[in-house]
Amino acid sequence: MAKKPYPLANVYGLLEPGPVVLVTTASSGRPNIMTMSWHTMIEFEPPLVGCIISNRNYSFGLLEATNECVINIPTVEIAEKVVACGNTSGANVDKFEKFGLTPMPAELVGAPLIKDCYANLECRVVDTGMVAKYGLFVVEVVKAWIDPAVKTPRTIHHLGSGNFMVAGETIKLKSAMK
Amino acid sequence: MAKKPYPLANVYGLLEPGPVVLVTTASSGRPNIMTMSWHTMIEFEPPLVGCIISNRNYSFGLLEATNECVINIPTVEIAEKVVACGNTSGANVDKFEKFGLTPMPAELVGAPLIKDCYANLECRVVDTGMVAKYGLFVVEVVKAWIDPAVKTPRTIHHLGSGNFMVAGETIKLKSAMK
Repeated sequence: MAKKPYPLANVYGLLEPGPVVLVTTASSGRPNIMTMSWHTMIEFEPPLVGCIISNRNYSFGLLEATNECVINIPTVEIAEKVVACGNTSGANVDKFEKFGLTPMPAELVGAPLIKDCYANLECRVVDTGMVAKYGLFVVEVVKAWIDPAVKTPRTIHHLGSGNFMVAGETIKLKSAMK
Repeated sequence: MAKKPYPLANVYGLLEPGPVVLVTTASSGRPNIMTMSWHTMIEFEPPLVGCIISNRNYSFGLLEATNECVINIPTVEIAEKVVACGNTSGANVDKFEKFGLTPMPAELVGAPLIKDCYANLECRVVDTGMVAKYGLFVVEVVKAWIDPAVKTPRTIHHLGSGNFMVAGETIKLKSAMK
């Protein structure tokens, strides 16, 4: 269950398939968790990710204040906790405690990793120019971790209104695409 | 097999799970197809989508010139054609003809729909402010179509290097999330 460092050049393959993720932030030692589905890779290396975060979220202020977060990728085993995090505001609740998730210290950022997720991406905000208009934070992944025991993660993908598609079979096609 | 109009308010649920899509463009009557995995919803309604398109793609110039495209969502049945589109440049090849895909006229834009895809989103570019820096086009979906016979589309999701996750089972969780 120990996480291992993961090459930054391979990070795109974790986010490109579009999983629901849990974004952690922390301010003054108090961590928060936000459920997020609106994200896209922007660059391979260093890996840049565009994250759409509404200013109605408690995490918006924490991210603006600290410029640091962790993108944690959960699997279906903790799907109910992922949804619970999305249904609750961190303004009043310690979601780690309430939903039984385990924080672990990150190496390069102040926000915690979520141990219960199979992959964790430590991120720094590098561009806030599109935050006012679209809530779009551009973050750079500066350190990545993965649980090497999880070979085919059953990630969850939001279809709207609490319906989720669970990652199915994997196929390999002859591709020149990165 | 006839497509039906799909409510714009529900479009997010088609793209939020992160499928590989085929972007069609057209200039001077000559259509092109590009395979794309780097996209995110930005707003629910009107639906705004952020699309990362490198200027190394032939479609980049067509999109810049016309400000119109169609986002077509394929399923695993045509996965080999999707990859073939990604491996080929439209500079020299008519991909519709070469890969046996069928164009259909759109209602509001000049780019064609791909009949072989279960959903088609007619789009207009509404913001090019981030194109120079990130290749990020913000497009608005102005008309959406869906094949009502496809209840659980087996979309494909790129894991990198030609490996694709195929959409698996669907689960429903009690969520207050839209």
